Amino acid sequence: MNEALQQAAEKILAGDIRAAARLMRDIDDDEPQAVELLKRLYRDTGRAWVLGITGSPGVGKSTLTDTLVSAFRAQGKSVGVVAVDPTSPFSGGAILGDRIRMQRHATDEGVFIRSLATRGHFGGLTASTRGVVTVMDAMGKDEILVETVGVGQDEVDIVRMADTTIIVVVPGLGDDIQAIKAGILEAGDIFVVNKMDREGAGRTAAELEGMITLREEAGARRGPWRPPVIMTCAYDGRGLEELHEAIAGHRRVLLADGEALLIERRRARARMELLELIETRTMARLQRMLQEGRKLDYLSEEIALHRRDPYSVCEEIMSSMLLA
Amino acid sequence: MNEALQQAAEKILAGDIRAAARLMRDIDDDEPQAVELLKRLYRDTGRAWVLGITGSPGVGKSTLTDTLVSAFRAQGKSVGVVAVDPTSPFSGGAILGDRIRMQRHATDEGVFIRSLATRGHFGGLTASTRGVVTVMDAMGKDEILVETVGVGQDEVDIVRMADTTIIVVVPGLGDDIQAIKAGILEAGDIFVVNKMDREGAGRTAAELEGMITLREEAGARRGPWRPPVIMTCAYDGRGLEELHEAIAGHRRVLLADGEALLIERRRARARMELLELIETRTMARLQRMLQEGRKLDYLSEEIALHRRDPYSVCEEIMSSMLLA
Repeated sequence: MNEALQQAAEKILAGDIRAAARLMRDIDDDEPQAVELLKRLYRDTGRAWVLGITGSPGVGKSTLTDTLVSAFRAQGKSVGVVAVDPTSPFSGGAILGDRIRMQRHATDEGVFIRSLATRGHFGGLTASTRGVVTVMDAMGKDEILVETVGVGQDEVDIVRMADTTIIVVVPGLGDDIQAIKAGILEAGDIFVVNKMDREGAGRTAAELEGMITLREEAGARRGPWRPPVIMTCAYDGRGLEELHEAIAGHRRVLLADGEALLIERRRARARMELLELIETRTMARLQRMLQEGRKLDYLSEEIALHRRDPYSVCEEIMSSMLLA
Repeated sequence: MNEALQQAAEKILAGDIRAAARLMRDIDDDEPQAVELLKRLYRDTGRAWVLGITGSPGVGKSTLTDTLVSAFRAQGKSVGVVAVDPTSPFSGGAILGDRIRMQRHATDEGVFIRSLATRGHFGGLTASTRGVVTVMDAMGKDEILVETVGVGQDEVDIVRMADTTIIVVVPGLGDDIQAIKAGILEAGDIFVVNKMDREGAGRTAAELEGMITLREEAGARRGPWRPPVIMTCAYDGRGLEELHEAIAGHRRVLLADGEALLIERRRARARMELLELIETRTMARLQRMLQEGRKLDYLSEEIALHRRDPYSVCEEIMSSMLLA
């Protein structure tokens, strides 16, 4: 590792905001030195607690995130916020980031916010988000909140990188609960029915309870933690204390018995991350190799003219590249 | 190649329906011998013309496909139909397959239909569809119609494997045209506004014309073919002759100058197919290798405990596997 990288690492580990922001930008730009620096930082991370907050647009994720930030700050903890919005660089997530960022500049050095919206760099949005979380962890943030709009596979992946995952819904969105059922329910540690003063809040909560019970009966998740369903009103504060208690309770469960469940969870996450990383890198390398000397053009033409078949060509390429 | 495979190949090349159906089932079941047989068949394919027909549910794809089958049969051509429905094994596509299959059993040995709805085998629905098209081509079908519901990435990929792609819309679905704009417009060779007696048919056609013009002005597609917009009513037959003429016209353009444009198109398709195949196989092999001796479990634990970082582990695995 060269000296500049070593210095940058030391600055970030000491909490230097400018050095951290520079690395985050390099992650976004897919700069090679970003990976070298992340390698160096990684072994000094793992102390932060990562909270994932997801839900459809308009359910009040931003306001809830805001109240959680305030609550953690009141406990003297430092906080990082990663606002991920894959749907648009200009909608909810980015706006949230800007809003809180302004507050921080005015009053609070203990909160660091980063908005992520772009795709395609650094092996995709999930990989970028992981990198940014690692940087915040290295900076010494105690709590890292990853807020994301819950729609596609990326969002499920992002939610799965959390130690505690909070899924937010609002009353009267029957379709929403169906969508959650399809993909993301499995990942929820805490369910929040926000805007509890709206009609149908009780029914929505009951439906979620029913789904959690069904899941338990199906044996999908055994263990000491049963995801609670909490009704909140982020604007007047109702239910927020219960939410904070649920977060603390979930954390206690994961940390019990020498952190047994936390390690299990992080191992599953590491496994997924490693495979994704290998896939992205392998394909990128392969494409580069095949581009050289227009090998890919030549082989595509052979296949297009039915002189060779794609299955045999695939096997030849793989056996020329792979030892195993 | 063993004798049983050689015999199966000969039967399929002679048009044997039972041998072809067996191979298609093996493709669906991801049987290893399916690939061996496809390798053998591939060099004897490339003669069939592949038509892709896509559009949202309810636009009348099935009826249009039906009329195209009848028109090709009236010209004495043999026809294969692949009805792909990724959204459900029981909706549109599968029903179409059953309906036409019944007709064939009653009257016509020159039409072969296969419904595909499952995901996850043979490297996904796109790869399965490609395999089934290869089998129909090997059987000697002159025309192969691939009908698919146009919603996700799979469908765009499936549409892109066609020699001629027909995109079907109905009047008054403004959102639909927006969706087409986002992903699939680029792939359309012919646009059909079906159910032309509905209100707004002219406006829908004009909107499509406008989008095609915009695309041309942006230089997205140059060349001798401008995608026409054709208004049809599949039930009373209006516009169908024009559609058939457009299909023939597009074919003439691709076949001109020693098939220059057809080869260009098929080369791009082969390139995409080859890369997808390598990706799927490489990741499957990698997972198997890492499963052995619980290597993946061990490495995931090391990463979870922050003893090693995922980036370095990824590089180690890749350099132990890859020569380049």
